[in-house]
Amino acid sequence: MRLSKLVGERLKDASSGTNVKSHNYLLRAGYLKQVCNGIFTMLTPAQLINLKIQNIIRQEMNALGGQEVLFPVVMPREMWEKSGRYNSIGQEMVRFKDRNDHDMLLGMTHEEAAVHLCQNTIKSYDQLPFMIYQIQTKFRDEARPRAGLIRVKEFTMKDAYSFHTDKKELQNFYQKVYDAYNRIFKRIGMKKFIAVKSDTGMMGGDIAHEFMLLTDIGEDSIVICPHCDYKANMEVAVSTEDTISFEDSSIKEVYTSNAKSIEEVCNYLKIKPQQTIKAVCYAIVGDDKNTVIVFIRGDKEVNEAKLKRIVGKEIAVKDLSETGLVKGNIGCLNLQVKDCQILFDKSLENTCGMVTGANKEEYHISGINLKRDIPDAKYYDLAKVKEGEKCPICGKPLTIERGIEIGNIFQLGTKYTKSMEMTITMPDGKPINPLMACYGIGVGRALASVAEESSDAKGLVWPISIAPWQVYFCPLRLDDENVKTQAEKLEKSLAKEFELLYDDRNLSAGIKLTDSELMGIPFRVVISPRSLQNEEAEITIRKSGEKIMVKLCELNNTLHDLINKEMEELNG
Amino acid sequence: MRLSKLVGERLKDASSGTNVKSHNYLLRAGYLKQVCNGIFTMLTPAQLINLKIQNIIRQEMNALGGQEVLFPVVMPREMWEKSGRYNSIGQEMVRFKDRNDHDMLLGMTHEEAAVHLCQNTIKSYDQLPFMIYQIQTKFRDEARPRAGLIRVKEFTMKDAYSFHTDKKELQNFYQKVYDAYNRIFKRIGMKKFIAVKSDTGMMGGDIAHEFMLLTDIGEDSIVICPHCDYKANMEVAVSTEDTISFEDSSIKEVYTSNAKSIEEVCNYLKIKPQQTIKAVCYAIVGDDKNTVIVFIRGDKEVNEAKLKRIVGKEIAVKDLSETGLVKGNIGCLNLQVKDCQILFDKSLENTCGMVTGANKEEYHISGINLKRDIPDAKYYDLAKVKEGEKCPICGKPLTIERGIEIGNIFQLGTKYTKSMEMTITMPDGKPINPLMACYGIGVGRALASVAEESSDAKGLVWPISIAPWQVYFCPLRLDDENVKTQAEKLEKSLAKEFELLYDDRNLSAGIKLTDSELMGIPFRVVISPRSLQNEEAEITIRKSGEKIMVKLCELNNTLHDLINKEMEELNG
Repeated sequence: MRLSKLVGERLKDASSGTNVKSHNYLLRAGYLKQVCNGIFTMLTPAQLINLKIQNIIRQEMNALGGQEVLFPVVMPREMWEKSGRYNSIGQEMVRFKDRNDHDMLLGMTHEEAAVHLCQNTIKSYDQLPFMIYQIQTKFRDEARPRAGLIRVKEFTMKDAYSFHTDKKELQNFYQKVYDAYNRIFKRIGMKKFIAVKSDTGMMGGDIAHEFMLLTDIGEDSIVICPHCDYKANMEVAVSTEDTISFEDSSIKEVYTSNAKSIEEVCNYLKIKPQQTIKAVCYAIVGDDKNTVIVFIRGDKEVNEAKLKRIVGKEIAVKDLSETGLVKGNIGCLNLQVKDCQILFDKSLENTCGMVTGANKEEYHISGINLKRDIPDAKYYDLAKVKEGEKCPICGKPLTIERGIEIGNIFQLGTKYTKSMEMTITMPDGKPINPLMACYGIGVGRALASVAEESSDAKGLVWPISIAPWQVYFCPLRLDDENVKTQAEKLEKSLAKEFELLYDDRNLSAGIKLTDSELMGIPFRVVISPRSLQNEEAEITIRKSGEKIMVKLCELNNTLHDLINKEMEELNG
Repeated sequence: MRLSKLVGERLKDASSGTNVKSHNYLLRAGYLKQVCNGIFTMLTPAQLINLKIQNIIRQEMNALGGQEVLFPVVMPREMWEKSGRYNSIGQEMVRFKDRNDHDMLLGMTHEEAAVHLCQNTIKSYDQLPFMIYQIQTKFRDEARPRAGLIRVKEFTMKDAYSFHTDKKELQNFYQKVYDAYNRIFKRIGMKKFIAVKSDTGMMGGDIAHEFMLLTDIGEDSIVICPHCDYKANMEVAVSTEDTISFEDSSIKEVYTSNAKSIEEVCNYLKIKPQQTIKAVCYAIVGDDKNTVIVFIRGDKEVNEAKLKRIVGKEIAVKDLSETGLVKGNIGCLNLQVKDCQILFDKSLENTCGMVTGANKEEYHISGINLKRDIPDAKYYDLAKVKEGEKCPICGKPLTIERGIEIGNIFQLGTKYTKSMEMTITMPDGKPINPLMACYGIGVGRALASVAEESSDAKGLVWPISIAPWQVYFCPLRLDDENVKTQAEKLEKSLAKEFELLYDDRNLSAGIKLTDSELMGIPFRVVISPRSLQNEEAEITIRKSGEKIMVKLCELNNTLHDLINKEMEELNG
């Protein structure tokens, strides 16, 4: 490929609003162009990376006996009504009517399509286990697309579905895919990634893991025990902090003026947040009548993923003033509210001397003894884990890191085979609903995650396994007759053996070298009037910045060695 | 791959309603499963073929310097409003509102996206010519999906867009892609295909060609001159038939009772259809007021694609009785109708002695002399060419064949760059709208077309270049210990060197051999207790049915030779 003809500009400054490194560099280096919010065109360098990532994924899926199929993007409502998800999934799923007024949708995932395919096709236990997978465009109408390719509306995804006769077989296979995922991320050049326990969310099932790339720009919080093997997404991390009790006393109404927030109440009463009970109010999405109030210790935050699992429905923070509640003074004693589910966080269990709202303006109540005053309170693990809390496994202090979800795997069990009525016949002749697991990797997000982790101050730094080109050939002073002649010769010889991007532009060394760094091609070969005097070329390793002068006759061999070395590091 | 684990059934009878061979076999052999009307899941054998077809296309596009990109499936209204197609394309384009109430659409083609990408990215004449392409899912809400993968709603398509500074350069490049398309279809194993001139339709531009696979199940009619090089889609084929005149006489109102159709009028008056003038009435789609009436010789049919181009709008046959016209008696003399465009086919020009409707019940008018009686008539080429008409190039008789459109290429000119305001700077510093061409191939339709052309009475017959597997290994009597041991050995040795489908089922020879033929794998290797006595295997060439006995030690070499021979035939 000649750079002069490559569609895409190299820009000095990215357009505004791109404060994420990978997004910034991918725009500046001519990999991406935004079509509209959360929707991008991938230019050739990005698409070449996509194809390489897809091939690595394909190899690992095929190695597990995976069968590549292709499900449709557009599916009919009926299929998703059977599974119950036509109604349970919110606005992120696009629904439309076709020309014959049939309800259709754009697939965000394909459990329904997988069951539809295997239903009546797979009939007997001895056809299991097997895994089908596809690499296909998905659309998810994200409320807040962000960070370039990290969170988009349209994306290419590999999604796989395995089918099993029993739980043990499912777990064995799940472990194999878990291992394959580790290999995939390593092979595409990710370094700091881990697998953590995760929420099953809209997918359903019991057990799920997310693969996380640890990075400050991640939107997920991950709870990690540096002392044992415990790793969990914040959404499922178990809070095991001890409760704190204060001096037991009798209930007393105390004047708190216009103090409303925990901070204001604490300042007014000269107490610590740990002594207060915070009320957080929620609406149930799609239900105008029922509400939820969580009481939690003042220094803690509600983990809404946990709450959602307990409530069993989508929830959203809501001001409940219109129901007669006094905002900022809601308390758990003598609370009068209709059609409301009231939950307590474990952090309050058996505590004494606590302060809660008085359910009227300007007053709180002190001296609450939960056991004594609210004997029928129901306690749940509802709090977000905080840095330094005890590990639920080994008891040592936990740390919290940020991460990007780069893959996820779910033990779905019979959720879909049951609802869609897929059965297979077992050796004893009886029908069962087979068990399923599913496994996803977003191709574009993988690309962006590598860009995020591997880039440096000069630009992108692609791992050799997924680089759009292996070699950036950069002759300087193309106006020099000798350079030009040699460059044309070398282009031919390099293009025969390597994936080559040839910077054929007659521009300054500054621009050309800066562009090569921005674009992140692993090996740069420079020739100049000076290097040619010694019949030499200069190879620069993008990753380390190391420079090597080689004789022209040794150029290809040296490049092969360098490429092989980097490939071995990734695959080894 | 082991057949026992392959998802997909082999069926004796296809489900009802599949009267097209490719559709029938693809369903029966486990390649496809219908999700809903016009939407399919591709099973592994079909997806393997898809990937091979895509790779052949990719190689040929890359050989022309094509740059692979990826445009989004979902695009915003604004982009398509600029080109004018948001409104001009009908119901076949899916439109929906996203969660923020923005109008979005599903791409059926990507001219707008291509211009959006290149606009402001490509600035100067010296960056041209170039071609970008993608292989991406498309959705087209077909009114009448048919014949399995031949006409579907959702499909994978390669679409390419080239940009040029002038017409000559565009034509040169267009020719190169034309040649590449011929290579692609040959390489994927098509035999009877031709390129024909075609209508530009909703794409716009001047010149277009379709690549057509000639087959009786094709929905297009192709006009071919067996004597010279003239080939055209019926939609654009020029009718050059001589006009026929009858004895000149004066106008006379004649009683025709309730004769309405051309046939009835001819029977009643004892004349030939050639002496009648037929009226065909049309509504303009999306326009309640204006209508169109075409007068054409009674033995001819209106070519609606030609009519549409002349009218410049979508048209649809309509009964105009409600406007006061007398159905079956509409005539071109003294026709009183408002807001109606009246067109005459060339076949009527200067004819005499013709019969037309009297614009009242039970009467026609005879003795029409067009020149004399309707001096201001406007004549156009509006008729469908009929078998045996004169070739517009050499004058010899034309033939008409049926074909499936397997690819299309368009010289778009500046239609999109002008409407979307893309400019590049020329050497003289002046801006111009670059010229464009676009080039499409549907991957799934190519698969189905090959299936249609290459299948025989036993099932599918895949060309080696796109076969899902090269070799179908089919040991008979797997209950025999010796067969089983040898089969396992051979499976390993074959799988190392070939794409292998291993029929590991312990079923009757009848079922296994029939399945291998139905699935269409190019080479079948059979071992049986008997063949093993001589340390032999039987190779069957699917295409010819030819059988070859080979020593086991020669098996791999013989297969390599056979495969290479077939590959050479396709690529040579």
